[in-house]
Amino acid sequence: MENVIIIGSGPAAHTAAIYCGRADLKPLMFEGMMAGGVASGGQLTTTTEIENYPGFPEGIDGSALMLRMKKQSLNCGTTIQTSTINKVDLSVNPFKVFSGKQSFTTHSIIIATGATARRLNIPGEDKLWQKGISACAVCDGALPFFRNKTLVVIGGGDTAVEEALHLTKFASVVKVVVRRDVLRASKAMQDKFFRNKKIEVLWNTNVIKTIGDNSLENLEIKNNQTGKESIIEASGLFYAVGHTPNTDFLEKQIKTDKSGYIITKPGSTVTNIPGVFACGDVQDSKYRQAITAAGSGCMAALEVEKFLNETN
Amino acid sequence: MENVIIIGSGPAAHTAAIYCGRADLKPLMFEGMMAGGVASGGQLTTTTEIENYPGFPEGIDGSALMLRMKKQSLNCGTTIQTSTINKVDLSVNPFKVFSGKQSFTTHSIIIATGATARRLNIPGEDKLWQKGISACAVCDGALPFFRNKTLVVIGGGDTAVEEALHLTKFASVVKVVVRRDVLRASKAMQDKFFRNKKIEVLWNTNVIKTIGDNSLENLEIKNNQTGKESIIEASGLFYAVGHTPNTDFLEKQIKTDKSGYIITKPGSTVTNIPGVFACGDVQDSKYRQAITAAGSGCMAALEVEKFLNETN
Repeated sequence: MENVIIIGSGPAAHTAAIYCGRADLKPLMFEGMMAGGVASGGQLTTTTEIENYPGFPEGIDGSALMLRMKKQSLNCGTTIQTSTINKVDLSVNPFKVFSGKQSFTTHSIIIATGATARRLNIPGEDKLWQKGISACAVCDGALPFFRNKTLVVIGGGDTAVEEALHLTKFASVVKVVVRRDVLRASKAMQDKFFRNKKIEVLWNTNVIKTIGDNSLENLEIKNNQTGKESIIEASGLFYAVGHTPNTDFLEKQIKTDKSGYIITKPGSTVTNIPGVFACGDVQDSKYRQAITAAGSGCMAALEVEKFLNETN
Repeated sequence: MENVIIIGSGPAAHTAAIYCGRADLKPLMFEGMMAGGVASGGQLTTTTEIENYPGFPEGIDGSALMLRMKKQSLNCGTTIQTSTINKVDLSVNPFKVFSGKQSFTTHSIIIATGATARRLNIPGEDKLWQKGISACAVCDGALPFFRNKTLVVIGGGDTAVEEALHLTKFASVVKVVVRRDVLRASKAMQDKFFRNKKIEVLWNTNVIKTIGDNSLENLEIKNNQTGKESIIEASGLFYAVGHTPNTDFLEKQIKTDKSGYIITKPGSTVTNIPGVFACGDVQDSKYRQAITAAGSGCMAALEVEKFLNETN
């Protein structure tokens, strides 16, 4: 019987593990085996240099940061299993979690399985991912690579508008590719967006090919009304088409929003099931940063400690 | 006219600065001159080794971590002034902030002035602060220094009970010094507390002197009913008597709770004044960790960026 099982291996999961470990809860972590389509360590392992994780003034490689966090979790007394939890039973406490044929019982669970950036499966996308194509303008936009270049954003929602505005600070031109002929962003944000002289909107348009050898150079686009195809310059392509939270394995046993994000009590990691806590991107479609995920991992650990004190 | 002024210099303030800087908002930070009674860098500068900040598997000195964050803020384009903001005018936007005779105008403000652990001004306390005396059991309890020793907690509220339970994992005995003859902690938590064989409560008791040469060794205590004084062994003394948020300079222009903590919309850093955001311990009496503060600093920066996009 475990005190706490942590599912995940990104900044939220490891911060939870560090705090649970130091509280002598002997946490058991399932870091997953290519769970959610990414290596253990989570989304940061798909990035290169991270300049905005506080404490590393010269920046740090995403995978290197996650290796440091993993080492710290182990130092603090975490047991880490490299397997994926593919099923849970939250109907009774102690809870059960399953990894293939193995099963485990636990008094509490921290879900930190993250979210996976949606891709569009455009030809060339795989090859140029993180070589000009990014799913996070806030994370990557300020990199020297993108300065004074033509950058392209795909999407028509709040995120697309925010990311385009963010990128105007670095780019020479920001082209926003919108599939329809309307934006789904707030009015106030749209005003600023349409006033910005660096922004150009390509309505009714799809990107149909990404072109480049070692890094992104051009995009082939198609107007989905006229059928006209053309090639545009693009040193950066930012997807603002949403993320998919990794919650399928929960089989609707826990309350989520309509996109599948776990609903937590605002300002906490408390879910609708006492003893089950959620942190990081699996419950956050808004901030989605390594440092916010880490902060919420700490909150989950402190809430688990309190829960165990009150119930056992 | 500034886009954003950041008041404070702890993990919340510097994370906000890193993100605002990278968003090209050219943040101006006032790190303070012994504001709240601590050096710039905030409460972490009063600690020694930090083992629970994710990313540093071997631990890091509190002041060293804050110097790294400060360097990162500067690298990202933050201007830092070493002076204290002692007055603000939030009645109109652009807001005004004052440092002595200097005044500045700004479209937005991030308040990250933190909180200061209350001290009891017991004789010997100053000399032995962080040499056996700590204001955070979760931060310091697991340090080797405190293992298998007699540890003492002062306080009678939820925090005191939680911290005592936390310390039982490392200590041989935990003595809880309670001024009155009753605890103000939740029933569920008290059950676990009174069942724990390592915990001993000293009711109606005050600590009147802390004794030790290079580190804490003994406490002189006094029963405030009988007047009886005695000396007890103590390798650690943990204050759980609350913190004072550094909000006096706001002169009640912003909504706070009765203890003076700024009230933010849960799960955000939004205050009751549009354009003024609060992050870190100045709005958090619950988690109070470096990593949670840093996470909320990032949230504040993203919220400022959105606010400026929507209003300017």
